[in-house]
Amino acid sequence: MFELGVVKRNITRANSVAADQLGHFGASTVHEALGRVGLMQNYLRPIYSGARISGTAVTVLMHPGDNWMLHVVAEQIQPGDIVVAALTSPNTDGFFGDLLATSFQARGARGLVIDGGCRDVKDLTEMRFPVWCRAISSKGTIKATLGSVNIPVVCAGACVTPGDVIVADDDGVVVVPAAMAVATLDAASKREALEADKRAKLASGVLGLDMYNMREPLAKAGLRYVD
Amino acid sequence: MFELGVVKRNITRANSVAADQLGHFGASTVHEALGRVGLMQNYLRPIYSGARISGTAVTVLMHPGDNWMLHVVAEQIQPGDIVVAALTSPNTDGFFGDLLATSFQARGARGLVIDGGCRDVKDLTEMRFPVWCRAISSKGTIKATLGSVNIPVVCAGACVTPGDVIVADDDGVVVVPAAMAVATLDAASKREALEADKRAKLASGVLGLDMYNMREPLAKAGLRYVD
Amino acid sequence: MFELGVVKRNITRANSVAADQLGHFGASTVHEALGRVGLMQNYLRPIYSGARISGTAVTVLMHPGDNWMLHVVAEQIQPGDIVVAALTSPNTDGFFGDLLATSFQARGARGLVIDGGCRDVKDLTEMRFPVWCRAISSKGTIKATLGSVNIPVVCAGACVTPGDVIVADDDGVVVVPAAMAVATLDAASKREALEADKRAKLASGVLGLDMYNMREPLAKAGLRYVD
Amino acid sequence: MFELGVVKRNITRANSVAADQLGHFGASTVHEALGRVGLMQNYLRPIYSGARISGTAVTVLMHPGDNWMLHVVAEQIQPGDIVVAALTSPNTDGFFGDLLATSFQARGARGLVIDGGCRDVKDLTEMRFPVWCRAISSKGTIKATLGSVNIPVVCAGACVTPGDVIVADDDGVVVVPAAMAVATLDAASKREALEADKRAKLASGVLGLDMYNMREPLAKAGLRYVD
Amino acid sequence: MFELGVVKRNITRANSVAADQLGHFGASTVHEALGRVGLMQNYLRPIYSGARISGTAVTVLMHPGDNWMLHVVAEQIQPGDIVVAALTSPNTDGFFGDLLATSFQARGARGLVIDGGCRDVKDLTEMRFPVWCRAISSKGTIKATLGSVNIPVVCAGACVTPGDVIVADDDGVVVVPAAMAVATLDAASKREALEADKRAKLASGVLGLDMYNMREPLAKAGLRYVD
Amino acid sequence: MFELGVVKRNITRANSVAADQLGHFGASTVHEALGRVGLMQNYLRPIYSGARISGTAVTVLMHPGDNWMLHVVAEQIQPGDIVVAALTSPNTDGFFGDLLATSFQARGARGLVIDGGCRDVKDLTEMRFPVWCRAISSKGTIKATLGSVNIPVVCAGACVTPGDVIVADDDGVVVVPAAMAVATLDAASKREALEADKRAKLASGVLGLDMYNMREPLAKAGLRYVD
Repeated sequence: MFELGVVKRNITRANSVAADQLGHFGASTVHEALGRVGLMQNYLRPIYSGARISGTAVTVLMHPGDNWMLHVVAEQIQPGDIVVAALTSPNTDGFFGDLLATSFQARGARGLVIDGGCRDVKDLTEMRFPVWCRAISSKGTIKATLGSVNIPVVCAGACVTPGDVIVADDDGVVVVPAAMAVATLDAASKREALEADKRAKLASGVLGLDMYNMREPLAKAGLRYVD
Repeated sequence: MFELGVVKRNITRANSVAADQLGHFGASTVHEALGRVGLMQNYLRPIYSGARISGTAVTVLMHPGDNWMLHVVAEQIQPGDIVVAALTSPNTDGFFGDLLATSFQARGARGLVIDGGCRDVKDLTEMRFPVWCRAISSKGTIKATLGSVNIPVVCAGACVTPGDVIVADDDGVVVVPAAMAVATLDAASKREALEADKRAKLASGVLGLDMYNMREPLAKAGLRYVD
Repeated sequence: MFELGVVKRNITRANSVAADQLGHFGASTVHEALGRVGLMQNYLRPIYSGARISGTAVTVLMHPGDNWMLHVVAEQIQPGDIVVAALTSPNTDGFFGDLLATSFQARGARGLVIDGGCRDVKDLTEMRFPVWCRAISSKGTIKATLGSVNIPVVCAGACVTPGDVIVADDDGVVVVPAAMAVATLDAASKREALEADKRAKLASGVLGLDMYNMREPLAKAGLRYVD
Repeated sequence: MFELGVVKRNITRANSVAADQLGHFGASTVHEALGRVGLMQNYLRPIYSGARISGTAVTVLMHPGDNWMLHVVAEQIQPGDIVVAALTSPNTDGFFGDLLATSFQARGARGLVIDGGCRDVKDLTEMRFPVWCRAISSKGTIKATLGSVNIPVVCAGACVTPGDVIVADDDGVVVVPAAMAVATLDAASKREALEADKRAKLASGVLGLDMYNMREPLAKAGLRYVD
Repeated sequence: MFELGVVKRNITRANSVAADQLGHFGASTVHEALGRVGLMQNYLRPIYSGARISGTAVTVLMHPGDNWMLHVVAEQIQPGDIVVAALTSPNTDGFFGDLLATSFQARGARGLVIDGGCRDVKDLTEMRFPVWCRAISSKGTIKATLGSVNIPVVCAGACVTPGDVIVADDDGVVVVPAAMAVATLDAASKREALEADKRAKLASGVLGLDMYNMREPLAKAGLRYVD
Repeated sequence: MFELGVVKRNITRANSVAADQLGHFGASTVHEALGRVGLMQNYLRPIYSGARISGTAVTVLMHPGDNWMLHVVAEQIQPGDIVVAALTSPNTDGFFGDLLATSFQARGARGLVIDGGCRDVKDLTEMRFPVWCRAISSKGTIKATLGSVNIPVVCAGACVTPGDVIVADDDGVVVVPAAMAVATLDAASKREALEADKRAKLASGVLGLDMYNMREPLAKAGLRYVD
């Protein structure tokens, strides 16, 4: 599965409408719509607040302290892609900075999700090139060993197959399998439609206990009120 | 102490003037005024910078991955309260989001302190509903098991009895026992009155060594100056 | 090396032009220019975004939970210095707050790097006194035990000799040995001159693969492209 | 609650039969018998395998890096006690070693639970004086600041009132409130009586699915079997 | 991929000879033979030293704090299997103890790999039922929510497909895809045959520098010897 | 200070009698004798219990995931040395296993202290080659980049100059600067002579409060006894 030294050029990207629109719902809603699976570990954090993106995954697997393959993956980026970078073991070096971001942006990438470190965060923030990473670090990397591009990877605890949809915002990063992108978009839309009504009720002072009819199941479960 | 499945409806809230005014001094000054006790662990962080609140605690104890009791505690909130949510074991799932925040805000809650995860942080920031939490996570929770409401809890390493005063800002979260709220407010006021004068002296170049008369005790302790 | 109870008054500060100008290049570029050494661990984070400073190190070694020596080091600060505070064992208490910052600023300090906790972060942000620390904590400290001032210390995994140049920004904190400050400034200037040209090429769509002539070494290393 | 500088001499210890016998059941069974509450965080680990103790808590609260109060608590130990040591903020220094263990053992203490570090672990192992701690460290501590003895403390996330029963073994450390000690002993005995029968059935190949009648609730919850 | 509420009964297990024999080589050699991929994160540790097992994976996905599905997976165990338990979010509760171990052992399981906590470790050690886990905890779990059995899971950062070979010992846990089991066994055998000769040479004082002919590439890379 | 690509052949080792005998006192006593400095962080742990060694440091600095320089340092080992391996950034890969241990042992090394991972721990335990490391990992490393040998390094937070004395046991790892080795040996001997007498008194029931004359300073500090 994780063969090293291979670049796969042709990958099947998820439906582009779904890939584009899932981002509007954000990671939390999409994660619910998908059945509460596919979430990356929450140690990945955005380098700046407020970014919300979605797009199709191109993947790269690298060794600790070596970012050579980020140059290789750059060539495989198509407009609308998000690069997902996994490591063979945990490492927080600064694999990615403003030069690579310039290149990725020129190729049409919408952002980077990396299970490692990032640097030049001030420049990246000014460029509005969003990165979700596990650390910020000035520590540079070498270019000595091969990894692979566009193979399935595990990034921050989630399996990512090239072409899957990535949704990332302040709440985290969710992976939607390509085959489920359209159905998930549909489910997310329905969830959100319901939420507006719920929000209005709750704002008016109605309790979730009543709105969701929880009083009976709580009593059945044994909840007791005392003074 | 931690009996599960119980909701206590009548709690004795701390003096409301003290509960309201302690927030003006902030967590660090209140922590000093209280004798350097009652601080929650510093892994709790605010979801956005700049919030500073105080209020009376209503408490809730939940299991990992299950936020059912947040709906139960909502009904017990009175204006001026801060919800303090503890877990039976560490977990970073997203227990709280914009719908619950809408409900809590409608009930008059000033904020949430939770020893777990939070989501919808962009919405919460726009609503100005402050949350101190140990992680941000899109991971949803279930509604299957009972916990308790308004029992004494340990939240992020600090004991909280319902009705205690909570003071929270960018520096952290402090718990002031209800019985000590008025005395602590008094002590905090005195501390702050002294600080303005000290700040002016230090700004003018006077050293703490001289202002606090530290040179003699340092010499006695054996401090040596060398060239 | 780490003798306790000593204050060294006369230290040899690095070349002041280099100490001042290295900050313009930022931690990541300086770290590269220095040969990828001298970086503090990336658990040190700035209390607010956007600060970028450089200056000469005055050092202090303290015990966990005891900030007495911060008052001692204040007297040794000269304009253009950055205080580097190390601990004898890990601790996240709030060693530093707005009063000490007022004093340090009055003495001409440009910032603080501390392998411990900091508090009053809202005030420090308003004062624009930048601090890089391992935690934010309301927990106050005592003034009971001696440490040392201006001895070589290990701060966040990096050796710092008094007088070394410190460069700190959003990417991290780098230590430049005083003897290498001028050469490092020269190397950093050259690096940056080259980067503008590279950035322009990458922005135009040229790939790093071509710009850096990586295709041949990648093929030699065995990289295979598949469809 | 956490007043500093106080030693309470008279505490009410839990029923001694219960305090002695709860240890036979071990931490996991007692934790279940108690209703799944009262567990310390699992970062506390025994310094050697195989110890299983129970006894009544005498408590002590200390500052990071300062073990002065361990000498004060020694005088309050009665045979059958277990010392529970909490800190005002996290610290892993070596607060406790073979000399203090000799003293504690001479006073009749059965062990130590400390939310800090321990040293001389080889000697302690040979003495068979068990310690549950958060780290092992050669780092010595000072004797400069007051804490308190026999006040309620939070140790590793659990509230401990002096006189409570502590049960500790390879699985962890549980706190049984004094008032619940006898009832918990009774519940633990009943649990264990049932377990022998269950163990025999499971060993013979009977499935928990059948023994606990889980098939129907699983089906109701929607579990589907596919080929 | 991670559909919840499904139990797959028919899975294709890897070649049984390879599954049995890979264990003789241990995790480190197999990891090398596999091309340095497929390793679980090293926070998973064995509950006792010295166990070395291999076998075919049956998988289970559970929610934090809920071990209901461990009873469901028990029925799917065949002799020679190793249970691999993944969680939907990080949690260290004690999902597994001596009763479940009795059942698993009766079904022929060789061990458990779980990305969560374990308890009754003294009993498990006496039973010689090895478990690799992320924590030891007395904290019990509930039986309230569905997960899945025999679906592909991510456990401690590694993808596991039901039927894959698991190799686990004191060095860690490796996953060998079923399709590569025989080839990996062959590669591991060859590696080990070479190692005996190397070990003898190194024991006689021959340096790796000479045995591996490293002096020339080191010199080419620029290594300088100084006095 | 950390120049890469250099091997220093001639280093000045500490007094050999002191280097040999300091080990008898163990890390904790030596750390006290040295003035409570020079301790490595306590995340370094021995791979097996009971080893206690001392010897002179030969140092090596490596990049994450690359153990090439361990072969280079092997040639610089003299009987009685302990290898101290530092990394340019945190990494837990398995840099060291049984083949390198065979070579190091053949050269006369007494052990390894490494701020990274180790593997083949079962073999190393059987060979009685002790290693203090930050993790155990099957993850192999590459041999692609230069580091340095016998330069000053920071290992687990402590500065080590080649030739310093290393003392390591179950309590941790201490670095004694070569110039202080003899004086530290003397101080450690004196400490230990005093301890036997203290231990006997404490074992007889004398309290530390009395033996160390603490009652008066405690009262002066304000300690109050209450009933």
